[in-house]
Amino acid sequence: MRVTELESYLASRRQLVQEALEKSLPPAGSYPPAIHQAMRYSLFAGGKRLRPILVLAAGETAGSPPEPLLPAACAVELIHTYSLIHDDLPAMDNDDYRRGRLTCHKVFGEAIALLAGDALLTQAFAVLSQVPAGIPPAKVLQAIGELATAAGSQGMIGGQVVDMEAEGQPATLEIVNYIHTHKTGSLIRACLRLGGILAGAGEEQLDILTRYGENLGLAFQITDDILDIEGDFTRMGKKGGMDVARGKATYPACLGLKKAREIARELCAEAQSLARSLGPAAEPLFLLAGYVLNRQG
Amino acid sequence: MRVTELESYLASRRQLVQEALEKSLPPAGSYPPAIHQAMRYSLFAGGKRLRPILVLAAGETAGSPPEPLLPAACAVELIHTYSLIHDDLPAMDNDDYRRGRLTCHKVFGEAIALLAGDALLTQAFAVLSQVPAGIPPAKVLQAIGELATAAGSQGMIGGQVVDMEAEGQPATLEIVNYIHTHKTGSLIRACLRLGGILAGAGEEQLDILTRYGENLGLAFQITDDILDIEGDFTRMGKKGGMDVARGKATYPACLGLKKAREIARELCAEAQSLARSLGPAAEPLFLLAGYVLNRQG
Repeated sequence: MRVTELESYLASRRQLVQEALEKSLPPAGSYPPAIHQAMRYSLFAGGKRLRPILVLAAGETAGSPPEPLLPAACAVELIHTYSLIHDDLPAMDNDDYRRGRLTCHKVFGEAIALLAGDALLTQAFAVLSQVPAGIPPAKVLQAIGELATAAGSQGMIGGQVVDMEAEGQPATLEIVNYIHTHKTGSLIRACLRLGGILAGAGEEQLDILTRYGENLGLAFQITDDILDIEGDFTRMGKKGGMDVARGKATYPACLGLKKAREIARELCAEAQSLARSLGPAAEPLFLLAGYVLNRQG
Repeated sequence: MRVTELESYLASRRQLVQEALEKSLPPAGSYPPAIHQAMRYSLFAGGKRLRPILVLAAGETAGSPPEPLLPAACAVELIHTYSLIHDDLPAMDNDDYRRGRLTCHKVFGEAIALLAGDALLTQAFAVLSQVPAGIPPAKVLQAIGELATAAGSQGMIGGQVVDMEAEGQPATLEIVNYIHTHKTGSLIRACLRLGGILAGAGEEQLDILTRYGENLGLAFQITDDILDIEGDFTRMGKKGGMDVARGKATYPACLGLKKAREIARELCAEAQSLARSLGPAAEPLFLLAGYVLNRQG
């Protein structure tokens, strides 16, 4: 497959993901209604579905059709969504807006938001445990183990902890790197690995996908840091300048905007070069690296 | 195996579980330290390990040695522990004490307690994804699916939601039954099913284990309701009378203490009769039903 039109690729994969996500939760109105409304409110809040699309693009690179990869793609988005709900809670970042809408706890209250997050995290593993036709159960178990590790106390959650602890402290590059490679990078890396593992990628191919994911994940977070300074509410859907206001440890805070931009460009170039080495089936991954660098929100 | 001495059975299985739980988390002091301290603080807070022991006892009934069942036993305890941490948070029950010690958020703060709960829930699936020798990967996947469903928005979390919504409302037996069979019953039922599934129980055996778990789980929660009224801090490790003070939906609130006690007795008798029908290997399950009925804390 050769993809010249990234937008049409994104649109078609987004639709597959959207339909699969729709089926990945109990139907709207399921008892008890409050929790299911809250889960759906946050899951269908207009996210770009970048992570699930990365799962599909990685698996397609390794020769799989997208359909058997959809449970893993959904699982990653469910985990991403739960992490946003919990991050926004008053005990954490205390954010009122996310993607231009009120945050989950502002609409449903703190208790339901907390439980909705818990339920989305739990549902990720229920969804991932369904074995798609043609994928060996042992591969699915490997994917579950990798996703849990990536999302856990030495992965995404570990990054969140250090991010909180670093607030208001002088930011060293070492700390910022830990935060970015864990809080955001860990799950993005897992997207690439899950796609590869479930598609039966060989060791070398999987290693390249992993390194692509590491470069892309860090680039993604650095551009996020930059957008927080330069972006506006309309495009970002949340207040800008919050990182500086909170004394968050970011790349621009450590190295300045210019250097941060330069590093993001280098990381994306490296990701693109890794994608090129995977051949024409990795064209979506190649194009996605440019998309991440140039995104506006 | 015939067990006449429940205490020695519980002690030996508790030790196996304890050792396995010790290995189920990153080592103490792992980076970032705050989250790992909090996870360990709550996981090793003197719990009775009833749920993991039920996983082992169910699996042993179906002919398995305890060792291959330990990942599932740990996973269930990790989930139980996360649910306690989140239940105790200010946004939920706002409890200061649990098992006679300060609750997780009182020691580590709300943000770390929230994340420690998230991390324990996540780790449950990391642990369960390790396939023990001799157990087919497909069975492990089935166990993961059942555990996630039991702990999710239509299981344990669903029960928690309805429990909160029912506070201060007139309690109907229908609502109380939903709360009890979901908030507590769902995970206890899953213990029995996971043990059975991983041990390769046949359909009929699994069905009996399931019904045993349903009876035991409801009996357990009713005795909990009764202990909240009659127990004291020394034995319970938390303040008694809180259910009444909060207007919680309980069996005694619905039916009175006498009737509640009678129903708990009947449920345990039914559980014992189901255990009897599983033969001598189910002696621990038989004795555990008596233990649950007569426990003092």
